Amino acid sequence: MQFSVTVLGSNSALPTSERNPTAQVLNVSERFFLIDCGEGTQMQMRKNHIRFTRINHVFISHLHGDHCFGLMGFISTLGLLGRTNDLHIYGHVDLEMVYRPQLNYFSKDLKFNVKFHIVNTEVSETVYEDNKIIVSSIPLKHRVPTCGYLFKEKNPELHINKSSVDYYNIPIKSIPLIKKGSDYIGEDGSLVPNHLLTKPARAARSYAFCSDTKYSEEIIPLIKDVDLLYHEATFLSDNENLAEKTHHSTARQAAQIAAKAKVKLLIIGHFSTRYKDMTLFEKEAREVFPATYLAREGATFDIPYLKD
Amino acid sequence: MQFSVTVLGSNSALPTSERNPTAQVLNVSERFFLIDCGEGTQMQMRKNHIRFTRINHVFISHLHGDHCFGLMGFISTLGLLGRTNDLHIYGHVDLEMVYRPQLNYFSKDLKFNVKFHIVNTEVSETVYEDNKIIVSSIPLKHRVPTCGYLFKEKNPELHINKSSVDYYNIPIKSIPLIKKGSDYIGEDGSLVPNHLLTKPARAARSYAFCSDTKYSEEIIPLIKDVDLLYHEATFLSDNENLAEKTHHSTARQAAQIAAKAKVKLLIIGHFSTRYKDMTLFEKEAREVFPATYLAREGATFDIPYLKD
Repeated sequence: MQFSVTVLGSNSALPTSERNPTAQVLNVSERFFLIDCGEGTQMQMRKNHIRFTRINHVFISHLHGDHCFGLMGFISTLGLLGRTNDLHIYGHVDLEMVYRPQLNYFSKDLKFNVKFHIVNTEVSETVYEDNKIIVSSIPLKHRVPTCGYLFKEKNPELHINKSSVDYYNIPIKSIPLIKKGSDYIGEDGSLVPNHLLTKPARAARSYAFCSDTKYSEEIIPLIKDVDLLYHEATFLSDNENLAEKTHHSTARQAAQIAAKAKVKLLIIGHFSTRYKDMTLFEKEAREVFPATYLAREGATFDIPYLKD
Repeated sequence: MQFSVTVLGSNSALPTSERNPTAQVLNVSERFFLIDCGEGTQMQMRKNHIRFTRINHVFISHLHGDHCFGLMGFISTLGLLGRTNDLHIYGHVDLEMVYRPQLNYFSKDLKFNVKFHIVNTEVSETVYEDNKIIVSSIPLKHRVPTCGYLFKEKNPELHINKSSVDYYNIPIKSIPLIKKGSDYIGEDGSLVPNHLLTKPARAARSYAFCSDTKYSEEIIPLIKDVDLLYHEATFLSDNENLAEKTHHSTARQAAQIAAKAKVKLLIIGHFSTRYKDMTLFEKEAREVFPATYLAREGATFDIPYLKD
């Protein structure tokens, strides 16, 4: 029951020799979700041993090149690998307008469909849902229409109270339904209410991805109490004016959002190329929110499965 | 008077964690020419300390993603760096059709013009010319319209015969014109013919870039005697049938072309991801053409300036 985020790129738009543009992979019980896809994402996936075939859903925050210029290469490679499953891409309405012509030109012979799903970046809405997870959009404030994504586990199963189950002599075949909340009804019609057989489910795990955005407290209700928050931190406070002007955030501002939303852990990234010493970002953010970590290429942040 | 090629990517289409898709930079006396631009080229340029601002001309062999998916990222970065000089891109007529809409969407606010120049991939023609170099196309045989490029130094200057110059008492200010082939005419009208004052110029240096193509002897007259030939070698001979089918070459075939064209040095690259041990390519090619080297990321091949 894994729930972990691997960082494939931590940098902002200008390339460096050490850092890559934004891309992350969320692993939910071996279902992989690609979040943003800057240039070189497919090479980063190779380096980090992420299997291309495991990715069926791609979420794009906005149409700036450092968040989507890796899409065509990634899709072309899926074609070369002989993929047949549909690929679903979520993003602003312009995404299909920009990429469909390229797909038609470069990838005429794909054996799978690329399905674009329009995300309204202005309001929070459910974007994707399956039996394990629900994904919703987080409207952000950037120079072009932008949204983050909130990934939240769905309905964790109730824990079985073993002594009660033994006491009431519940057959094993009835356990799965009881874990989902059903009462037990015996063959003689007798009923044992669910609350006598179970203990509360563990909390649903959650990850909020917020890039790119200027400081905005409007997102706080949407990301409240998440286990893990990624919030962009393009600048240090010495460039707070520049952050404001370019609709980006400072490390301190990211930490302030994390503190106000009472998240458990904060990852910061999207560092401006002007900075060479990334530990300064960590230092600045930790003054406000101690549980801050840097998005470094290849780093994996695991949200543990807590039984109680 | 440098004339050197730096390899930025040696791989074919499927990405590996070690190798990048095709891109090279030719340095002619500190004028840099970018040849193909696979995904991640701009990061490779950073790693190899190639200054983005020095590149004014980009030559694209064909519109397969592993040869052009880095273009948008590269151009966007030039914009962020504040470039104002025109950027010239040479390639098949479809290149502008595919990339102009992307430029219009992602790079509306560039302070420089991107000028596309149509290259006829069916016949060899002069593509670019300045006072130092002439670039012509090399028609290739691939699955889509494709051409290589021949870069040839223009008119190397004649060498001065110092003893003659002293003997005839030629003033220093007249030397530049004599190096270009002029006779000397004294103030009294006396004439000293050029051949008495000079020795033959060194040979013009040349580099031929040929990717992607199946084995074709039709290119031999165009690349005859070049100092340096890059010829793709996607497969080893064990997959010669696959090479034929996909319109690619084997290492042995690349070496055969090099031998028949009597080039001085051969670089092979565009290796299929199926191969892990690149030295097998070198071994196979060297059996036919000993002066073969592998296109490895970061490798620079320098064609020396020979005075005689």
